[in-house]
Amino acid sequence: MAYHLLQRNREAGRSLAQVMEMALTQVGRCGVCRTLTEDPICTICASPARDASALCVVETPVDQDAVESGTGYRGRYFVLMGLLSPLDGIGPEELGMEHLERLLRAGEVKEVIIATSSTVEGQATAHYLGEMARDARVPVSRLAHGIPLGGELEYVDSSTLAHAFQGRMILE
Amino acid sequence: MAYHLLQRNREAGRSLAQVMEMALTQVGRCGVCRTLTEDPICTICASPARDASALCVVETPVDQDAVESGTGYRGRYFVLMGLLSPLDGIGPEELGMEHLERLLRAGEVKEVIIATSSTVEGQATAHYLGEMARDARVPVSRLAHGIPLGGELEYVDSSTLAHAFQGRMILE
Repeated sequence: MAYHLLQRNREAGRSLAQVMEMALTQVGRCGVCRTLTEDPICTICASPARDASALCVVETPVDQDAVESGTGYRGRYFVLMGLLSPLDGIGPEELGMEHLERLLRAGEVKEVIIATSSTVEGQATAHYLGEMARDARVPVSRLAHGIPLGGELEYVDSSTLAHAFQGRMILE
Repeated sequence: MAYHLLQRNREAGRSLAQVMEMALTQVGRCGVCRTLTEDPICTICASPARDASALCVVETPVDQDAVESGTGYRGRYFVLMGLLSPLDGIGPEELGMEHLERLLRAGEVKEVIIATSSTVEGQATAHYLGEMARDARVPVSRLAHGIPLGGELEYVDSSTLAHAFQGRMILE
């Protein structure tokens, strides 16, 4: 891309640089949920139509989009912008956990939904979040682990199968 | 493989043919759970150590092996040897459903665990099995659907995400 812009289209390169500069200056973090936004408060946090009693904690704005478009969820979010990873120097402070704690202790949130990935860092972060919510006396739930839709049992790894088995749902 | 046997190793070909012949003659179906076995009743159904109050319904002997090795399940199985697929002429009779119904009505089974794949045929079969168990007044459960272990939220398809969201578990 760099060669293309330098050799053939310097004008486009210049306008790309300007747009990036603008984005880097104007896109900041939401004062409530910490997602990326151009406003002081993002549209979801500012919307009175959203259910403020549910708070879904996700890792990135991309995950937030996935939950927003894939599910019928209409509560609010908290975007960590990362996962706990002590080896990379990412601790609770870097993820704005004290910010989240204040939100939980404010009393408006009645359910925290932990939607971190099920990788090692995701599990560790979920555990930390669970403890924090428990201390703040807010009920906490976690996305189900199990067989992906359309998945054949034969090709599912054994730990996912064990989780799916343990978490089996009684049908009414 | 055919060329190798014909060109270089006719003796091995002959013994392979004999072994296959033997397997085809001797391996039949278990009289209780319908899995493949050389005995009239398979080792799992014959074992007094297995919990006869739980019955896990799977599609194939391979799935049975997956559940057996991947989970701590120690109940019994029923192996359908296929899934309902009207277009391929596979109905309840071909899957031994009347056999399963007799098992359920015998009264020993206290939980049916449906472990069919989450493909379209798997879902249809699960629905049929659920109805059957309900008619026989046996509680029925199904393996959890959700995010596979180690999976990143960003790469999970939206219907799996919606299921994982709906089936979220309250943490204690």
